[in-house]
Amino acid sequence: MPYTETDFYEQLLNSTRLFEGKVINLRRDEVELPNGKIGTREVVEHPGAVAVVPLTKEGNVILVRQFRHPVQQIMLEVPAGKLDAGEEPEACARRELAEETGFAANNLRKLISMYTTPGFSNEIIHLYLAEGLVKSDKRPDDDEFIHTQTYTPAQIHAMIASGEICDAKSLVALFLAGI
Amino acid sequence: MPYTETDFYEQLLNSTRLFEGKVINLRRDEVELPNGKIGTREVVEHPGAVAVVPLTKEGNVILVRQFRHPVQQIMLEVPAGKLDAGEEPEACARRELAEETGFAANNLRKLISMYTTPGFSNEIIHLYLAEGLVKSDKRPDDDEFIHTQTYTPAQIHAMIASGEICDAKSLVALFLAGI
Repeated sequence: MPYTETDFYEQLLNSTRLFEGKVINLRRDEVELPNGKIGTREVVEHPGAVAVVPLTKEGNVILVRQFRHPVQQIMLEVPAGKLDAGEEPEACARRELAEETGFAANNLRKLISMYTTPGFSNEIIHLYLAEGLVKSDKRPDDDEFIHTQTYTPAQIHAMIASGEICDAKSLVALFLAGI
Repeated sequence: MPYTETDFYEQLLNSTRLFEGKVINLRRDEVELPNGKIGTREVVEHPGAVAVVPLTKEGNVILVRQFRHPVQQIMLEVPAGKLDAGEEPEACARRELAEETGFAANNLRKLISMYTTPGFSNEIIHLYLAEGLVKSDKRPDDDEFIHTQTYTPAQIHAMIASGEICDAKSLVALFLAGI
C-alpha cells in the first residue's frame, strides 16, 4: 500500500513549557493529527549524549559500573555521558573516555547515531569505537562514583545473555563494534 | 581494583512530584551520594513497553513507518507500544503486533528486556521475536497513523547503515533476532 508523507505529519498547534531541569526539560505540545483531530504529545528535551566502546589491543572491552538512580540498580555499561553545551560529539566521546576510563584513543571511529526513545524524548546518542588506547591523566569527577573493569568478548556475551548488561546504548554499541 | 556496593549507592532523601502526564510522569529526587554530598536526580517515570520483530516464513521482517513528534521525523521501526495498566508484556506484544501489522504469531519468543535511558528514565522495554504469523482481524486505532511494509534482511542492513533505521529498540531487537 503506497503512502505519502502527509499521511503521517502532525502540525504543531501550541507548546507549553512544564519544567526546566539540570539535565532534562519537559514540554507538552498540542498537535493536529492527519485526520484533523487534536492530540497532545509529552516531550522530554535532552542535550544528547555519546557512548564509547573502548577496545584494548587484546580485543577486550572496558566497561563502567555505576548506580543508576532511575532504575535503582548498579549497571554495567560502556563509558558514556551527556554533551556539554556546544560540545561536538567526538570531543565529548574523547572527554568521557578519558574521565571514565583514564584512557585516550589513537583511533576513534563513529559507529552510528540513534534515538533512545523517540516516542517521548529527543535524546540522540552518538556511538563510537575507541582503539589504540593510551593512558591519559584524566580521572573521574569527584561526584562520579564509577568502577571500570576490562572484560573479554566471551564474558560480555554471557553478561548480555544473563541480563547484567541491559541498557540500549551498550547493547547497540557492543553489537556494532563486533564484540 | 575491588569495589563494594556501598561505593555506588545513593540514599533517597526526598522526592518532589513535578508532573503527571498521559504517558510519562516527572519527579525530582534529592539523594545522598556515597561521599556524603547531596545530589539531585530528575526521573521520568514510564509505564514500560514492548517491541516485536515480526519474521515472515520467507525470513523477512515487517516494519512500521510513523511520525515521531519528539524528533520531528518519520521513522521506520519494529512494531512496539506501551504497556497498558496491569498488562503482561507478552499480552502487550501480541496486542501491538495485531494492532500495528494485522498479524497474530503462533510462536512468540522473548529476546531480552532492556532499559532505554537508565540515566533519566525507568523505561524498560521487553523485546520479542514473532514467528508463525497468521492474519488477525485487528487493525490500527483510528488515531494511529502508521504504514507497515515487509523488508528483506539485506534491505534492513542497508537501512541501518544509512541511518534510516535508527532507534534503539529496533536496532537491538533486529540484532538479537539474527537479522
